[in-house]
Amino acid sequence: MKAIIVMPSNAPKNKLEATAALGAEIVTVGPGSEERRLRAEQLAAEHGYAIVPPYNDEKIIAGQGTVGLEILEDLPGVETVLVPVGGGGLISGVSAAIKLSNPKVKVIGVEPELVADAQASLRAGRIVSFPAEQVSRTMADGLRTQSIGAINFEHIRAYVDDIVSVTEDEIREATRALSANARTVAEPSGAVAPAAFLFHADELPNTKINVAVISGGNIDPALLAELRKN
Amino acid sequence: MKAIIVMPSNAPKNKLEATAALGAEIVTVGPGSEERRLRAEQLAAEHGYAIVPPYNDEKIIAGQGTVGLEILEDLPGVETVLVPVGGGGLISGVSAAIKLSNPKVKVIGVEPELVADAQASLRAGRIVSFPAEQVSRTMADGLRTQSIGAINFEHIRAYVDDIVSVTEDEIREATRALSANARTVAEPSGAVAPAAFLFHADELPNTKINVAVISGGNIDPALLAELRKN
Repeated sequence: MKAIIVMPSNAPKNKLEATAALGAEIVTVGPGSEERRLRAEQLAAEHGYAIVPPYNDEKIIAGQGTVGLEILEDLPGVETVLVPVGGGGLISGVSAAIKLSNPKVKVIGVEPELVADAQASLRAGRIVSFPAEQVSRTMADGLRTQSIGAINFEHIRAYVDDIVSVTEDEIREATRALSANARTVAEPSGAVAPAAFLFHADELPNTKINVAVISGGNIDPALLAELRKN
Repeated sequence: MKAIIVMPSNAPKNKLEATAALGAEIVTVGPGSEERRLRAEQLAAEHGYAIVPPYNDEKIIAGQGTVGLEILEDLPGVETVLVPVGGGGLISGVSAAIKLSNPKVKVIGVEPELVADAQASLRAGRIVSFPAEQVSRTMADGLRTQSIGAINFEHIRAYVDDIVSVTEDEIREATRALSANARTVAEPSGAVAPAAFLFHADELPNTKINVAVISGGNIDPALLAELRKN
């Protein structure tokens, strides 16, 4: 099936290349996430395409919720689950699946400090948007969304216990440590949840059986090489 | 507990450092695997130490056999299992566990061409030893054993269907591909089984549900950086 993928102009080269290699046609705009949404909607209106939205959609959320079901199935005694937050799709699904199955399990979101808009939104009680310029500066390129979606905000308010943020240095060190010690290749966006365990344990529930969702392994090879240089 | 680890003089620096960091005292000899065994026996005789042998030992084999049990538990429909072969401990345990549980499952060993002594032994019907100089040349440093043990040979004869060998280039590419595509950090020794799937499918059983054991993730960071450079 023909697929047009609207990607940010500052996406890492390896992600652009991997997407093209799978046969997709790429349209770059941005770097702002709002620009991407508008461009996708414009293309859909012009050509009659069906939009597959990245996060603010009930079917996308339901699909990502299977991650939560799998965690409960594999580790029924789990006490705390940490989930990366960009637009909020993954944590919407995971938190709903977990809380509706076992409300005693804590669900914590993790964001880079530079994109801590979900944390700000949760605290303000309304959706807070961050400027594209600031959002673009996090190395966690998969989480560069200016604001969470309205459907995501409702899920987060209902099912997420707290959201913590991590610095760029902490993300970098977690990415390195996952490769060196856990033998897992994560991209920076995928390493934010382990970064919270490594550097913000004091802000997390005092539990023993914890899961960190590592979502995103398309690291720029040059970055991985740099992190593992010595 | 005090631990003295006898390691080959050409072991990668990161393995020596990681071993020392865990508190072990390191004695380097070699690079030949026979030299290591003799030195360990000498130290044990002098100081009354207990030897924990690397592969030619029934308890070590039984312990490594749990890998086979876990494969059967996680994937009951498995048809073929590929296992890296150095001294033969891991494949002895895995093949015994699998064949004694389900004799229909194929178990295939994989070795670097430069250290294909287990393959030569299986074909000759007796233990064949390779020169230390040749064995030292494989990048798969965890598999640099000159010959398999006598107990391992009996297990391999009884339970292993075949042994295939892979080239240094194939090991290198498999190590890279595991990091880039499977997001798994393997050292070259750990990548030989996937290398067989990638490059020697014609020598393997024509089955659909296959498992490759990836054992060893202590890659030299400089090598990983080089492999992922572009």
